[in-house]
Amino acid sequence: MPGLSQRAKAMPASPIRRLMPFAEAAAARGVRIYHLNIGQPDVASPAEFWQAIHSTELKVLEYTHSAGLAELRKKVAQKYCEMGIEVTWDQVLVCTAGSEALWVSMMTCLNPGDEIVVPEPLYANYLGFARAADISVVPLKTHIEDSFMLPPVAEFSKKIGPKTKAILINNPGNPTGTIYTDEQLEGLRQLALDHDIFVIADEVYREFNYTDRPVRSILQLSGMEKNAVMVDSVSKRFSLCGARIGFLVSRNADFNAAALKFAQARLAPPMLEQLGVIGALDAPQSYFDGVRKEYMARRDLLVSRLRAMSGVVCPNIDGAFYATVQLPVDDADRFCQWLLESFDHNGETVMFAPASGFYSDPADGKHQVRIAYVLECPKLDRAMDCLEAALAAYPGRLTPVA
Amino acid sequence: MPGLSQRAKAMPASPIRRLMPFAEAAAARGVRIYHLNIGQPDVASPAEFWQAIHSTELKVLEYTHSAGLAELRKKVAQKYCEMGIEVTWDQVLVCTAGSEALWVSMMTCLNPGDEIVVPEPLYANYLGFARAADISVVPLKTHIEDSFMLPPVAEFSKKIGPKTKAILINNPGNPTGTIYTDEQLEGLRQLALDHDIFVIADEVYREFNYTDRPVRSILQLSGMEKNAVMVDSVSKRFSLCGARIGFLVSRNADFNAAALKFAQARLAPPMLEQLGVIGALDAPQSYFDGVRKEYMARRDLLVSRLRAMSGVVCPNIDGAFYATVQLPVDDADRFCQWLLESFDHNGETVMFAPASGFYSDPADGKHQVRIAYVLECPKLDRAMDCLEAALAAYPGRLTPVA
Repeated sequence: MPGLSQRAKAMPASPIRRLMPFAEAAAARGVRIYHLNIGQPDVASPAEFWQAIHSTELKVLEYTHSAGLAELRKKVAQKYCEMGIEVTWDQVLVCTAGSEALWVSMMTCLNPGDEIVVPEPLYANYLGFARAADISVVPLKTHIEDSFMLPPVAEFSKKIGPKTKAILINNPGNPTGTIYTDEQLEGLRQLALDHDIFVIADEVYREFNYTDRPVRSILQLSGMEKNAVMVDSVSKRFSLCGARIGFLVSRNADFNAAALKFAQARLAPPMLEQLGVIGALDAPQSYFDGVRKEYMARRDLLVSRLRAMSGVVCPNIDGAFYATVQLPVDDADRFCQWLLESFDHNGETVMFAPASGFYSDPADGKHQVRIAYVLECPKLDRAMDCLEAALAAYPGRLTPVA
Repeated sequence: MPGLSQRAKAMPASPIRRLMPFAEAAAARGVRIYHLNIGQPDVASPAEFWQAIHSTELKVLEYTHSAGLAELRKKVAQKYCEMGIEVTWDQVLVCTAGSEALWVSMMTCLNPGDEIVVPEPLYANYLGFARAADISVVPLKTHIEDSFMLPPVAEFSKKIGPKTKAILINNPGNPTGTIYTDEQLEGLRQLALDHDIFVIADEVYREFNYTDRPVRSILQLSGMEKNAVMVDSVSKRFSLCGARIGFLVSRNADFNAAALKFAQARLAPPMLEQLGVIGALDAPQSYFDGVRKEYMARRDLLVSRLRAMSGVVCPNIDGAFYATVQLPVDDADRFCQWLLESFDHNGETVMFAPASGFYSDPADGKHQVRIAYVLECPKLDRAMDCLEAALAAYPGRLTPVA
């Protein structure tokens, strides 16, 4: 048979995929699984989205412009302006979710063999897109003891070499829940300008902010007009993960023109969801307030439960709906599999994403898991009961139970 | 400012994009334009699609499985079996349109620098995806005098070298309307097996067949289990270009496993349209019969009008809804621009895609245009009136008017 490409062989598998058969087997045994392994919110999508979908009188579902529907681009640009991110609608490219926006931004900024510096732990699919784009991810290690905040500029700048074309950040962060401070972003700005490189900021969790300081967009930093690229998405904000609508936003006209050529090759983003998102953008502030309040309660519950468990390290979680947590286990991959394969607590168990998939060197995540707190509090509480009981029972536990 | 990547600079622009400002200016002057420049059918999408969309009671638009909804994959596999293409549902990967299926198949079969042989003229976006995937398109020239049929195997095999990993065909063809014969496909099969390379067959126009012989799928050729990859889409078949739902189908389990990793990186295809397509698959045979009858009438009208024009070469058109046609003009790009900029016929004009964008060497398409016959007959007839008058008036006409 013909051989597959080396790049296909080198593509990372989803960090959760390996556990799926174990989850299926557990479910088949009748064990109830609390799924804290994937960032799929359980919150309802805005009524305005569904209204737009149900009321469409379209007869032919046509291609939209490769950059998306003008009405959507205009409305999105206006929303950005309202939140203090001054952009015009021709600076907004509608993408097939943040995923495509990421891939396009990598392809537009970096040649094969170029380097992109990414604070780590990182969103696992960055590794997949970088592999597909044939670029090297240079990890900038951040540490659970500092709640995964960015290191000082001096340390950061050591990672930037002649092949570095961009820095990629996720703010608020998946899998860490960090929100960068103004000082950290200012350092980043200086680095980008000093080295004349791009900063690609994935800001899809912007609304999930549990602090009293604002999430500063990369597009709000002055002097960065040519360097700043924002990746955005409706997936989390509107609980529309299945819509596959995102945005690539920059004030760099050359970048935008080049990005559009990649968009033209794939013709157009999905149309129905574009219509729906035009509706969803009318969702009232109360929708976001409700979502924020709900996630904050979940975050508080999660943190207090985790910190009460002996040997567990739970950092500060400022935003998004993830926590990367250290567990007193020999190997988090093994522990996550054991949770599904060999454990239950009153007929229930819990599923996490082992953190190994969120590091360029999987060994760095050996004792950590990512927890997506996407279930309502009572379920989350029971999931934590499971974890607590599991840590007491797991044969590969590292430290003695308190 | 930071420099953009070379690969972004090298990405081809859409072959029609350059003409857009001229079309906008013409429209602004009040000239009516018959758009035969893009493959956007005017046919209504199936009622069953809209019914599925309007009746959904979903509240949260969630991620689907990266390979698509199981219900959709099962129904699609069943449809293939009914048409004599024996596949199981786990051999069907739902993609974000044929565009993504193409990109994934290139990435899975070819490394950077590898070669893919493609009969030419070719679908312009093949060049874009090949550029993005950093692979070389080796054109296999076909000729308007032979109605763009495949050359004999001996000639074909000269294109296959040590770096060739795949052959890519489009059957029925865009931009040519060719449908390959069983003999031609048998030759292709022999080539693929002799050289142990993949054949990627883009079959998105399968239902647009105006001959009395069937369109043979690459998956119907025996002994090709490991070599054959089919790219499919609902865009044309169901007039659902805006849905962005396609399929990547192969019986090669290793290929499918590798392709899935690329699909996992982008998480999922759009969900709403997957639901709609589950509905659309129930469209009765009469829907396709009606569409086929309509396009056949358009094809017949187009061919008879074009062949009556002096100096125009119109090949046989067996399928799809395109014709690549030779015009007696000095430069088809210039002529297409002139049609929009300097010409009208009773206040009307016509827009074509210059064929230069459908050749790896644009010079090969210098005297040709691609005509997408996507308008109903009376409009198509008036568009041909425009062309006829334009050819008589165009200052760069090559041969004397008869």
